[in-house]
Order: sequence, then structure tokens, then C-alpha cells
Amino acid sequence: MHAVIIAGGSGSRFWPKSRENLPKQLLSIVGQKTMIQNTVGRITPVIPVENMWVITNEQHAFETCYQLKDFGFSPSQLLTEPVARNTSAAIGYSAKILSQSNPDAIMAIFPADHVINTTEPFLKLLKQAETIANENHLVTLGIKPTSPETGYGYIKQGKIIKENYFKVDRFIEKPDKLTAEKYLKEGRYYWNSGIFVWKVSALLNEISLYLPKLHEQLEELAFNTAPIKGKYPYQTLSASGKKVFHSLESISIDHGVMEKSNKVIVLPADIEWNDVGTWTSLAAISKNDSHRNVISGNVVSIDNSDSIIQADNRLVAALGLKNIILIDTPDALLVCAKERAQDIKKVVEKIKSDKRPEVSTTISETRPWGSYTVLQKETNYLVKRIEVLPGESLSLQSHDHRSEHWTVVSGVAQVQIGETSQTLNANQFVEIPKGAKHRLANMNETPLIIIEVQLGDKLDEDDITRYEDKYGRDE
Amino acid sequence: MHAVIIAGGSGSRFWPKSRENLPKQLLSIVGQKTMIQNTVGRITPVIPVENMWVITNEQHAFETCYQLKDFGFSPSQLLTEPVARNTSAAIGYSAKILSQSNPDAIMAIFPADHVINTTEPFLKLLKQAETIANENHLVTLGIKPTSPETGYGYIKQGKIIKENYFKVDRFIEKPDKLTAEKYLKEGRYYWNSGIFVWKVSALLNEISLYLPKLHEQLEELAFNTAPIKGKYPYQTLSASGKKVFHSLESISIDHGVMEKSNKVIVLPADIEWNDVGTWTSLAAISKNDSHRNVISGNVVSIDNSDSIIQADNRLVAALGLKNIILIDTPDALLVCAKERAQDIKKVVEKIKSDKRPEVSTTISETRPWGSYTVLQKETNYLVKRIEVLPGESLSLQSHDHRSEHWTVVSGVAQVQIGETSQTLNANQFVEIPKGAKHRLANMNETPLIIIEVQLGDKLDEDDITRYEDKYGRDE
Repeated sequence: MHAVIIAGGSGSRFWPKSRENLPKQLLSIVGQKTMIQNTVGRITPVIPVENMWVITNEQHAFETCYQLKDFGFSPSQLLTEPVARNTSAAIGYSAKILSQSNPDAIMAIFPADHVINTTEPFLKLLKQAETIANENHLVTLGIKPTSPETGYGYIKQGKIIKENYFKVDRFIEKPDKLTAEKYLKEGRYYWNSGIFVWKVSALLNEISLYLPKLHEQLEELAFNTAPIKGKYPYQTLSASGKKVFHSLESISIDHGVMEKSNKVIVLPADIEWNDVGTWTSLAAISKNDSHRNVISGNVVSIDNSDSIIQADNRLVAALGLKNIILIDTPDALLVCAKERAQDIKKVVEKIKSDKRPEVSTTISETRPWGSYTVLQKETNYLVKRIEVLPGESLSLQSHDHRSEHWTVVSGVAQVQIGETSQTLNANQFVEIPKGAKHRLANMNETPLIIIEVQLGDKLDEDDITRYEDKYGRDE
Repeated sequence: MHAVIIAGGSGSRFWPKSRENLPKQLLSIVGQKTMIQNTVGRITPVIPVENMWVITNEQHAFETCYQLKDFGFSPSQLLTEPVARNTSAAIGYSAKILSQSNPDAIMAIFPADHVINTTEPFLKLLKQAETIANENHLVTLGIKPTSPETGYGYIKQGKIIKENYFKVDRFIEKPDKLTAEKYLKEGRYYWNSGIFVWKVSALLNEISLYLPKLHEQLEELAFNTAPIKGKYPYQTLSASGKKVFHSLESISIDHGVMEKSNKVIVLPADIEWNDVGTWTSLAAISKNDSHRNVISGNVVSIDNSDSIIQADNRLVAALGLKNIILIDTPDALLVCAKERAQDIKKVVEKIKSDKRPEVSTTISETRPWGSYTVLQKETNYLVKRIEVLPGESLSLQSHDHRSEHWTVVSGVAQVQIGETSQTLNANQFVEIPKGAKHRLANMNETPLIIIEVQLGDKLDEDDITRYEDKYGRDE
């Protein structure tokens, strides 16, 4: 069995922790690991990592490779989209790529950012779904509802096929409360989980029937796909491939295929699934205190109830709150009435229309070589903490508008300026003059940390000319 | 007329904006200026600055001098307490010092951290109070109540003396709501403002009658008071004077003298006074928006009402809040139900008992030479922004546990290391080795800003040996 993990989050509903540059699947919303790490880890007992594929927006490619490195995930099995075009595009493209080497493989689709609390029954169902899919059915996992949720789509079961799975009678859009209660009572309705299992050829055949234009375009996409040159050779589309992708119809696989096909099977699943759709979901999937709060981080809490409070480094003091969501991050804070959690996207829209950076980036950004954190930004200077991972190096580069001053605080730095190289230990300093070609590298086995002071008349990430880059970012 | 401004705030009710190191009077709670600046500025039309005295805790001496510098306030008229011992001690001590040069001066007492919105009638009343005080009365300003406040003490008027002032019938502790409503209706009750006017000799005479032990101790305090050596020669107590101050009884001037003396006069005042006792006071003294919010700083506000939201640099997004107080600072955040504003001191007590630094300091601290801000603190390094004011210099000092790396980002630095001095401009760097005697000075007319990276095994403010200090901190 092969897996395709759909990592297409846009990062608005979990703002300010999620950003455009850091969507939900790349965050540890619950527990230590990120959601995509949990998604991969959960299925490894039944799907070997060499059969796993991930599809994500290209801006998240390096971070995704980095987060999945310890699983042995190969960057060459990371497919990238230049833009989001809904699940028909992402799934169709993945299926097409997979069909080149394994046209009759069984392919399971998993959203990268959902929670499943009971792994064993889930894996058992996957194995069963594999068997059913082998008979050219399109299998969808239907979650047994535990409450009258109005935030999910539903699937109504049709006639029974075998003891525990059914033809699908119909797919249903998010219902109102009364209807959801009726569904819960009747018992033949399931939440649409977005988890599917099918044979690659069976899916592509249905796409050719119901989305013929997409089927044609997939050919072009596959032809225009190649790994980038560099340390993490993930798959990318050529310029013309990207153009095709942009032109794809934005339609969900449910609307595009599942609702039309007569090969669809629903396999009911009782697996404590949650799509973690808003901050309020945390109350359902996290440990609550005796006043039904979910509190984490550096918090002084007095007399609060039914609230979600997430602190970062800063001290957060909360007093007498009820039904409040409070999410603190170094550069942005959200405080919101719980009943308004669905409207956090309004906040994000407002911030976006105000062209504020907090919609897309945080003060800490990851790069293929490590990460940096902006400690202070003023008009004439900028202070950064830069961490270079063992064995990694920044590109050979220069800046037109700034000089840089580096003080090594931890680890060992290899610094090239012009044609000369030097080694700097902790407590040593170097200046990079404006315009000088330079490169910073960490050849040691411990992280390298430097404090950088930039001075200049224009201090932004765009003032960079790259001459060489081991991650292919100079192309 | 002389003024004594009582600047004794402890910084708990306006936490996290106020701290032990930065109490309310030193903050700009409303408008641009700090509360003590407003207090001084308000009375300058009737009391010349050379007749103004301020009494404050010694830890706030330099900052108080700095804030009052532009008024021409002389540091030699700043009295300092080693510890808070309530208003009898502070007022008695000030009166005693004043009596040495002006035994029969008229002395007006002003709390440093109250708001008065109608200055002209207030100043007129002060002039009248001066006249009444000349007849050896102790005059207290009684504020005409505008609501049934339970947070203030009250004064009941006795028999009329002249058309607009009265003997005091009695002083009354904070009443309950029903009693306060009765007072408001009856109309012969006033809020106890803590503003007093009397002849120095008259007050000292009443102290000798009702607080005879204090009267005796004041002699010792005065004898042990002298200006410090240095650029800001504020008055300080010698070690034995401090010991005496510690032993003073902690009692308010109301309990100690006013309730007992038969010379007390209440002068009713209709002057839009507010003691700014909690964050909720802001709603009364600030501009509200159409949903009764008081919002300032970098805030995205959607559908909030009856809330107080103060942001700092960070983006604060508030959505659907009602009756919430949200105060954001770089290192600590408070979010609190409005009705619980009185309990913020519980938060402060908790933080104090947890020995967290946020109870006393912020990441930005002022010093007589300027200020610094901690940008990042880790176990092995610390990054600071240091600003040295024009003409100022840090002490000649050394550190046993750390080296320091300075990059000048603005202004011109005079740097002495050992016996050699050098001038550094923006974009220049210097290292101060561990153990080296060094000094940083700004001889220019623009502020000097440097980024400092400290490295060492112990990074705290106590690791400093001072050899010379222009502010007398080496004594």
C-alpha cells in the first residue's frame, strides 16, 4: 500500500500560531510532534516510508523535508504545488505520478493535519480498505459521529456489501444543528474524514470519466515534473508545468469524483478522529483541568474556566476568564471569545488587507540550513539570532544595502569572505562589509549559533544575491 | 507655598505595565507624560519648581530626577525612603526637612499619581487653602462625589467656617455600596483625596501631640540626611538614618493626625479628580470608542465592547470580547475580567511568591546614564540594546564572568579599555575581554545606541565591579 499525505493547509484558522509560511500541519498543536509527523508516524506500521508521498505548497517544501527527515522520508517523494487548487488537483496529480511507477498500486489518502487517537483499529481498517480497494472500489472512511457536528460533511450509507461496509447512498454538505441531531440519532450517517483508499488506476479511470479535462492536464503535469538540484531534491513543476497547475479547476475530490462515481464504498470507522478545525477543538482532544481549561506554557491562571490559554515564552496572567481563547506568540497575540472561533479568519483577512507581516511570517523563520529569529528591527539596524544546523551552510551571497556583524555565541563557524576562509569559535567576531561575497557554514556536529547585527539603509530578506546554494535556491 | 509630592507607589495594581522598579507615578497611564510629570506640571502656575519637593523610594530616585529634569527640578529636593512606612512617615520626614529652612512655610501635599482634569479651579482652591492654612488650620481637599464609590475613604463636613469650607465632622473608611449611595444623596460627604495644605510648623505641632514617637525620630532622620555625591545629588539617609526609618510606625496621616486633630478643615473641591486606582479607572478618564472600549497601540479590534485593550509593539488581535482588560507588555501579558480588576494584586502576589522577575523589572530598565533592553537571554549568552544619553557615561567597571561584544549602531561611542581610549562610530565593533576594566561614554549630542552580546557562565546584573561612577553608585 502507498500513502499520499495531503499537506495543503493555508494557516488561517490557527492564527497566530499558524501563518501562511507555517500552516497547521507543520505545527505541534497537540503534544510534542507536529501534525504531519504524527500523520506519518501513525501509518508507518502498515505503510513503509519508501511508499509514502507528500504533496504540499512549494513554499513549505524544505520545512516538510526537514520535519520528516528522521522517518527516512525521501525528498524525491515530496510533490509540490505552486498554488492551492483543492483536493481533485492534489490527489489527481499524486495519482498520476504514482501511476508512472506503480499503475496498480493501492493508494491511501490522508489529510496531514487531523488527529486520530486510536491507532490500532485505524490501522486494521486501513488493511481492510486495501482489500476492498483491490476490487476496484473507491473506499472512503466514514467516521461514526459522537456529537451532532455542524462543521463536517456527512456520508449516508447505502446497501450493505459485506458485514461492516456499505455502498454510499449520498454525500451531504455541512448540515444545520437539527439535521445533524437527526443524523446522529438515525445512525446511518458518517462524518466525511477525507481519508480514502483506492487503486491508482481505478481513481484515474474515474477522473477520466468525471473530470476529463483534469485527466488530460495531469499528463502535462507529470511530464513537467522533476526533482530540484540540491541537497533536498523534492519534485517541482517546470515553469510551464506551474502554468498548467494554475489553470486547473479548483474542485474537491468529493464533488469532482466521489459524489458521481458508483464505485464508492463507505467503511465505518470508530477511531476518535478529529479534524482540528478551530482552536476550540483543543478542548476535545487535549487534557482539560478541573475547570475545563486547556492551558499550556508560562501561564499564571487564577479563576478561569472553559478557556484555552496557550503561552509562549512570555508570562501570561489570566484572571477570571470564561470561554476565552488566548493564544500568545512572540509577535502576535489573539484573545477571542470562544463562540467566535470560526471568525478568526476575519481577523486574518483584516491583517492581510492591512498588509501586516504577521499574516505570513513569524519572527522565527526556518530555512533549509537552519533558522533565524529577529530579535529587534529598527529602521537603521536589525538584530538576528541565526542557527545553522550541523553540516549545513548558507548560500554564497552578497548584500547591496547592508553590512553584517557576526558574534559566534555557540558552536564553530566557517566563514568565507571574498576568497579567504576562517574558522570562528564562540566569543569571536567578524564583520561582513556591504557588497562582499560571503558564506556561513557549520562543519561541526553541534549547532552553530551567531548573533548578527545588520546595518544599512534597506534591511529586508530580498536584498540578497546568491552565487551558489547547496539547496538549489540560486536557480 | 511649597509642595511635597508623595511618590510612594508600589506598582502592583497596574501590573504588568507597572512593576516594583516602575510604579504608577513613573508611567504614562493617560496621555504622553508620566503621572508625576503631570502632577508637577499642573501646580507650576502657583508653586515655583524651586519650592517643590518629592519623596520617593530610593530605588526610583534617578528615574524621578530624570523625569523631572526638564521642569528644572533640583535633585537636592528629592527625599528618599529606604522602605515604605505610609504617609505619616513620608509627610513627617518632608515637613521636618522643610522646617530646617522654612519653619513657617505653607506646605501642600500631593499624591504623585492622581488625575485632576480641571486645573484652573484646582489652582484657585490651592490658593484659598494657602490662606486658610496661614491661620494654622490643617486643610484637606474634599472631592465632591459624582458616584457612590466604594473604593475611597470619605470625609463628613462639620460646621461651616466660611462660605465654602467646613470643620471636619469625621473621617470615614471605605463604605459599602448602600452607605456610599446614602452619602452621595445627602451631599455633605466628600472623597478623601490625600491632598493637604498646612503650615509646616502647624503640622509638626500636631505630630508632636498625636505621634510623639515619630516626632522624636524625625529629628534623627533630618540629622542623618545628606545629598549623595554624583551628578544627581538627591537626598539620602545614612545607614543609621535608614535604620531609624525602618523602625518608624507604619500609619497613614489620616489615622495618625487628621482624625485626631481639631484643626482640620475640609475645603470642598469639584475638580474631576480620580485616583486612578485600577485599570478600570481608564474607562472614566480616557476617550472611549462607540462600544465603550478604551483601545491603544497596535490592536486589531473586531466586535469588542466595554473593554480596555493596551497593546505595545506586538500585534494584538481581539475578537468578540466584553468587559475584558487586556494589557500587553514585551515580557508579560494580563488578560482579566473587568469585574476582577481589584484582584490583579493577587496575580502580582502569585508572581512574587513564584520569584518571577516580572514582578519587579521589565526587559527595559532605566539607569542614570540611559537605558537598556534585553533582546534575548539564554544560559550562555545575552543580547542587549544599550542606549547612552548625550553627555552621560557608564561607570568604570569590570566583570568576572563575562566578555562583552559591542557593535555601535547609532551615535558615537567613547570606549575605554584598560588605559587606552578609542572612538567608535556606527558600524564599528569592539570586544571587552572578561576581567578588563572598561567604560562606555557618549560625549556627543545625539543618543548612542550599541548592541551588546554578553558571553559567559554567569550573566546577571550583579556581576559588576565599579571603580568610578559619576552618579555615586560606587559608594
